[in-house]
Amino acid sequence: MKKTILLNNRPQGEPTVSNFEFVTEDNTLQISEGEILLETTYVSVDPYLRGRMSDAKSYVPPFQLNKPIQSGVIAKVVASKNKKFAEGDYVSGMLDWSTQQISKGVGLNKVDASKAPLSAYLGVLGMTGLTAFLGLQEIGKPKAGETIVISGAAGAVGSVVGQIAKILGLHVIGIAGTDEKIDMLKNEFGFDAGINYNTSEDINAELKELAPNGVDIYFDNVGGPISDAVLFNINRFARMIICGAISVYNKTELPTGLSVQPFLVKNSALMQGFIVSNYAEKFPEAIQQLATWLKEGKLTYTETIVEGFDNIPKAFIDLFEGKNKGKMIVKI
Amino acid sequence: MKKTILLNNRPQGEPTVSNFEFVTEDNTLQISEGEILLETTYVSVDPYLRGRMSDAKSYVPPFQLNKPIQSGVIAKVVASKNKKFAEGDYVSGMLDWSTQQISKGVGLNKVDASKAPLSAYLGVLGMTGLTAFLGLQEIGKPKAGETIVISGAAGAVGSVVGQIAKILGLHVIGIAGTDEKIDMLKNEFGFDAGINYNTSEDINAELKELAPNGVDIYFDNVGGPISDAVLFNINRFARMIICGAISVYNKTELPTGLSVQPFLVKNSALMQGFIVSNYAEKFPEAIQQLATWLKEGKLTYTETIVEGFDNIPKAFIDLFEGKNKGKMIVKI
Repeated sequence: MKKTILLNNRPQGEPTVSNFEFVTEDNTLQISEGEILLETTYVSVDPYLRGRMSDAKSYVPPFQLNKPIQSGVIAKVVASKNKKFAEGDYVSGMLDWSTQQISKGVGLNKVDASKAPLSAYLGVLGMTGLTAFLGLQEIGKPKAGETIVISGAAGAVGSVVGQIAKILGLHVIGIAGTDEKIDMLKNEFGFDAGINYNTSEDINAELKELAPNGVDIYFDNVGGPISDAVLFNINRFARMIICGAISVYNKTELPTGLSVQPFLVKNSALMQGFIVSNYAEKFPEAIQQLATWLKEGKLTYTETIVEGFDNIPKAFIDLFEGKNKGKMIVKI
Repeated sequence: MKKTILLNNRPQGEPTVSNFEFVTEDNTLQISEGEILLETTYVSVDPYLRGRMSDAKSYVPPFQLNKPIQSGVIAKVVASKNKKFAEGDYVSGMLDWSTQQISKGVGLNKVDASKAPLSAYLGVLGMTGLTAFLGLQEIGKPKAGETIVISGAAGAVGSVVGQIAKILGLHVIGIAGTDEKIDMLKNEFGFDAGINYNTSEDINAELKELAPNGVDIYFDNVGGPISDAVLFNINRFARMIICGAISVYNKTELPTGLSVQPFLVKNSALMQGFIVSNYAEKFPEAIQQLATWLKEGKLTYTETIVEGFDNIPKAFIDLFEGKNKGKMIVKI
């Protein structure tokens, strides 16, 4: 029996479980020459998927109504008529939210369960790690001794960015939504300081204390008022990596806030939207580096693992309330 | 008799003539060894000076109360005890708003009145031309066939940016505040199209018609709602040069507007504050190129020349009502 999750209707504001539809098929899947049969092992849920649920022009086309949702998936090859893949292999790739599926193997990468836990290939050794590493390197251009602020710091990407920044010798300040998360940033991930945006009375003032030399790099996953507060603290030639804007993804009206332009002019500062897929030619080298750091124990990671295929939509929705620590993954 | 204009008090909102104080000194200026005596010929008034009248941290220190205002000036050497400068030379540099002054020559460049009108060294062959050329090149990275939108297009910098963009083969759309200015952009400066922001009912919709392939480069001199409208039209990998924000310089509250971050993420777009002085090592080459284009007739310019030292403050204030076409200069 094959279960699949389709986009039933597009969310207005916050996504809800009613935006998704579960369908079940009973017939056994048959593969043809060149194809493989996959059984899903882990499914990644990510904030950016919210954008694809809307019918708006963006860097990836929107999901279609009554078609499967797709995201990063780890799957096991259970039958193969494709020379590149053997039964028992594990692969990662953009795949349907489905318990089983047939693929020609295009866009799939084999992953090695002996080198790292399979789920890591969706996180620190997958798009998450690549986003953190390449966003920081390519736009942030970090230099030892500089100060970086990371919003959404306890999330999948943010927690990796902070650790890499520490490896590179930066002073690292994370912004997250609970004291427990702030503790984790400092004690597990080695951040120098953290701000709980839910209890802070004045993020701008707290930053001035924690970053007395100003902010050289801002790795932004959230947008909104937190990012406005950071603007008051940027240094000349600051670089701001706009990786996500989870605080506004569910807004039904266009979000407004401080005009950033005067801050950019005053500081000759840079703000750039970052999409990891633009840097595909750098993936192999970046994965190598991440794997090395992981092996050396310089890089660690946290996952929030939810069990059960039926819980995928709920896990996705929980992202917007910050219920995850680190990477949110559903184990099938 | 020497007349000087001091900063009397800092403007709240719009600058007024009462922010300035005229002082007169009767004693004859005497130069020492290494010094030159200068008589002011032309004074540049520029929107960025508004920032220096405030007491806020920025890329240049604020003007001090009861001290002379400074800006770009062309002056004649009327006496010299400095080997580098002879009586009769003309120089350009950052100098006091004063009819006469003594200098050691540091930071002054000789200008050649036989090669171009003296006032051009404050405009197209000075900071204005350098700002237009280097902002476009270094951040805009223009490619033939792309579409550029320029705000403040009839101003000193904007009108040069548009002409350079045409030389480089771009499709050029200017935004300015009167039909007369739009006519000038199209008929004198060769812009492909223009939008009068004072009469346009929907700048976003007009842009969609004039730039059906979207906007690759936005050269922004104004900020505010005009820039918000441009955001809806940017292409993937768009570059936005934030050169000025004249629409907000006189605001007493922090300006707000559309959150730019979601637009940047969606389009992998870049927004960068530009200050010409960061690119000083490229000045000689850039001036050479501008002078060549000027000589070849590919580049032209407009000036609004106001006569009389006493009119400097008024000329400066008029900038904020867009009373200038091209470079605003006061002839002494």
